[in-house]
Amino acid sequence: MAVAPPSLPEAEALATRFRALADPARLRLLGLIQAQPDGEACVCNLVEPLGLAQPTVTHHLQVLHRAGLLRREKRGIWVYYQVERAALQALRETLA
Amino acid sequence: MAVAPPSLPEAEALATRFRALADPARLRLLGLIQAQPDGEACVCNLVEPLGLAQPTVTHHLQVLHRAGLLRREKRGIWVYYQVERAALQALRETLA
Repeated sequence: MAVAPPSLPEAEALATRFRALADPARLRLLGLIQAQPDGEACVCNLVEPLGLAQPTVTHHLQVLHRAGLLRREKRGIWVYYQVERAALQALRETLA
Repeated sequence: MAVAPPSLPEAEALATRFRALADPARLRLLGLIQAQPDGEACVCNLVEPLGLAQPTVTHHLQVLHRAGLLRREKRGIWVYYQVERAALQALRETLA
């Protein structure tokens, strides 16, 4: 937490990102994506290690993407997700 | 986020803490407490800068305390709150 408390608009933007992290499946998703050899994953890589149904995993990926914590790229029939490291870094600085 | 994704119990404990942070008033409270000259505050110090009613501020302080993000100490008729820096540091490491 910076010495100056965040303004209300800043705090609202940060709270939206923390809300996206406030779910155990989404925290595990972020870890699983970062643990992939090239730091990216499609839903096909994530369903089995997470032990959740594909629509549920897709939903969580969308929540993380909307919150700016994942970026995505469509290649062929799959969408590949990578962690937005700068967004996580900004949250880390908030907690410093 | 550590290279190994968190286990489900670890992720559940972390999610509880992120849920406590997922509110703009609570983020501002943490900043306001840390911005006090001696790093501690009672609800009497927080109502005016936050612009919320005292029962609302007390509720948010309780949520942060239950999540392990604040510690508190009763002195006379007031309860004083300090930020649990080790808990914030653990969350930072999760996002590394």
